[in-house]
Amino acid sequence: MLLPKGGVSWKAARASLPPTRAIWVLLTKTRFLLLVALAGVILLLWRGIRSTAPDMQRFYCWGPSQSPMEMTPNERAAWTSHLQTPVIFNHHAPMEVNSSTIQKVDLNPIKSTTKAADNKERVLILTPLKDASQYLSRYFELIAKLTYPHQLIDLAFLVSDTTDDTMAILAAELGRVQEDPKGVPFRSVMIVEKNFGQVLSQEVDDRHGFAAQGPRRKALGRARNYLLATALKPEHSWVYWRDADIVDSPESIIQDFVAHDKDVLVPNIWFHRYEDGHDIEGRYDYNSWIESKQALKLASKLDKDTILVEGYKEYKTGRTYMALMGDWRENKDMEIELDGIGGVNIMVKADVHRSGINFPCYAFENQAETEGFAKMAKRAGYGVYGLPNYVVWHIDTMGKSNL
Amino acid sequence: MLLPKGGVSWKAARASLPPTRAIWVLLTKTRFLLLVALAGVILLLWRGIRSTAPDMQRFYCWGPSQSPMEMTPNERAAWTSHLQTPVIFNHHAPMEVNSSTIQKVDLNPIKSTTKAADNKERVLILTPLKDASQYLSRYFELIAKLTYPHQLIDLAFLVSDTTDDTMAILAAELGRVQEDPKGVPFRSVMIVEKNFGQVLSQEVDDRHGFAAQGPRRKALGRARNYLLATALKPEHSWVYWRDADIVDSPESIIQDFVAHDKDVLVPNIWFHRYEDGHDIEGRYDYNSWIESKQALKLASKLDKDTILVEGYKEYKTGRTYMALMGDWRENKDMEIELDGIGGVNIMVKADVHRSGINFPCYAFENQAETEGFAKMAKRAGYGVYGLPNYVVWHIDTMGKSNL
Repeated sequence: MLLPKGGVSWKAARASLPPTRAIWVLLTKTRFLLLVALAGVILLLWRGIRSTAPDMQRFYCWGPSQSPMEMTPNERAAWTSHLQTPVIFNHHAPMEVNSSTIQKVDLNPIKSTTKAADNKERVLILTPLKDASQYLSRYFELIAKLTYPHQLIDLAFLVSDTTDDTMAILAAELGRVQEDPKGVPFRSVMIVEKNFGQVLSQEVDDRHGFAAQGPRRKALGRARNYLLATALKPEHSWVYWRDADIVDSPESIIQDFVAHDKDVLVPNIWFHRYEDGHDIEGRYDYNSWIESKQALKLASKLDKDTILVEGYKEYKTGRTYMALMGDWRENKDMEIELDGIGGVNIMVKADVHRSGINFPCYAFENQAETEGFAKMAKRAGYGVYGLPNYVVWHIDTMGKSNL
Repeated sequence: MLLPKGGVSWKAARASLPPTRAIWVLLTKTRFLLLVALAGVILLLWRGIRSTAPDMQRFYCWGPSQSPMEMTPNERAAWTSHLQTPVIFNHHAPMEVNSSTIQKVDLNPIKSTTKAADNKERVLILTPLKDASQYLSRYFELIAKLTYPHQLIDLAFLVSDTTDDTMAILAAELGRVQEDPKGVPFRSVMIVEKNFGQVLSQEVDDRHGFAAQGPRRKALGRARNYLLATALKPEHSWVYWRDADIVDSPESIIQDFVAHDKDVLVPNIWFHRYEDGHDIEGRYDYNSWIESKQALKLASKLDKDTILVEGYKEYKTGRTYMALMGDWRENKDMEIELDGIGGVNIMVKADVHRSGINFPCYAFENQAETEGFAKMAKRAGYGVYGLPNYVVWHIDTMGKSNL
């Protein structure tokens, strides 16, 4: 037995405790009371610090005071014990498609807005080229300076029926632009090659003759459509058509044009000529016009396959030409509605092209290429506008307008 | 000195030779003569075998008698010693473009020929879908049986404004077709999603009402163009438009159509109906027609934005309908020229689309969608044909024709 002999009794226990008086004396001693008070103060201070945040949360937070990520499984079970057990009837498991041959493209998020750069909207710059080697150096000088984020710009070129060294110069310029350590490269570049077997001359004299206009405009329309069909990708929000023979244009032209929020928008196209030390400004592109009753009447009498071209005595249209309006010294943002446009510089919302509006390689209401494009866009209910005071400068073709 | 004493003299030399007579006896002995003759025969035989080929070559070959690949450098130098040293002045080193952002696409080798399968020409099958879940099972049953090499076929679907489970059923069917161990998968599949926010009903009663036709056909044209713009790749030679609600078509339809070598080609579209145990064959698609003077006169009086639709008393066109011609029991290869076509089944050379010919989402000469497509193709000089005796079977829409 481990108990003392004679059993455990109150009397024996009491005998082994200190007397009551001795305990009383100990409890009433000043230094013991101080110790108790000090311990209480420390305890209260520590609690005050520790519980401030959780206590505050109790007033405005109905969730757990702990991140669910930091909970143990037991804590989580305790927390969710006040919720009902969730029951899912006939739950649809998502269907997984994992074949690498199947691709999904969602066009719904592709928008064309005025805040294109902020929304990271992709711009496709399209340039048809034909014996264009002499223009490419200046073209890339201007393109490289565009202030729209280059990482949002794709370039695409069509090289067709070319006899000069356009392809080599294009490759050299592209190599330089895309690998320039000082510049930002464009997102991608596509060079499309397609020969249409055109025997039409690109010489200024020939290409501005009246008889050549119909077939020439149809061929140019076809070339533009090939480029568009090959280069337009689902991610593009804007298509910017830009000819190779522009010699000067504002660096912010993409942002400036996007801000107008138009389906189709063109600037005014002028040129500089230096004669006898004077800078003469010339009006270049007479393809941007407002339709006239006279021209509609003329067209109604023409065969449906005939192309109505501007600037020849054979066809007096009486149309209002944007080239003859406006001045670059005036308010650049002034807009006018157009019925025909020229192709030097066009900004188009990509969905206009996706809807099927393109450059007729045939007579569309007696117009082809860019003028037919404008007519087609208007027929489909899109807005076609011009900026008479926003001038893009074309090379001087010495007295011949681009008709 | 190594020479014998007394120097070398003729006399001493002669003394050490065998006597002349002994040599003569040796030379005239039969066995010596036999040895000489045998050696001569062996030598001649060996030369005859060894030199046959090079000797022959001397008569008709001006090149070396040895492959240049087998020559040693010394042999090559010896052979070319009769040539002048080549000199290249201002040699063009090829320009290398190695930036991964630059891509080149050559459209020149892309042809559409009658021997499409032999030339490995790629076919793109395009199918617009809208609440089409009920048709997809039959669609894929037929598509999987196409005998044109599946590795040359790309599929693309547009799923738009759909409220039923089309996407899930499409995914399930595609997964089955592309991973069927017994079948050959198609080269690629693209699913394009785009909602146009159409409130037009797809119910048969609604969609065949007169007033709904103009807006409906424009919307369908737009949808087709979105699909085309997204799915057409540079490598495609043929575009095969195929509606989801075909219930029967020949397995060799691609080869059959390609063999006709037409820019645009459609079959006759009929349907089966089983009534009281009888199989009634019905003519379905009245959108494939030959233009009439009456319709042209009617169109010239209509507003340019009005869509001329077939089969309504409001517009009496007097056109010749392919649906009312032909019989599937007759010669399937008979062709007729058309001016308007229906969209159930169209085979198009891809370059027709690349040239910009598509499905007007507006009034093109008072027609929209597939009929406008035919009008546009004709205006651009392409050939549009139909096969009245080649029948593709559509589902029966119970008395309503697809107008």
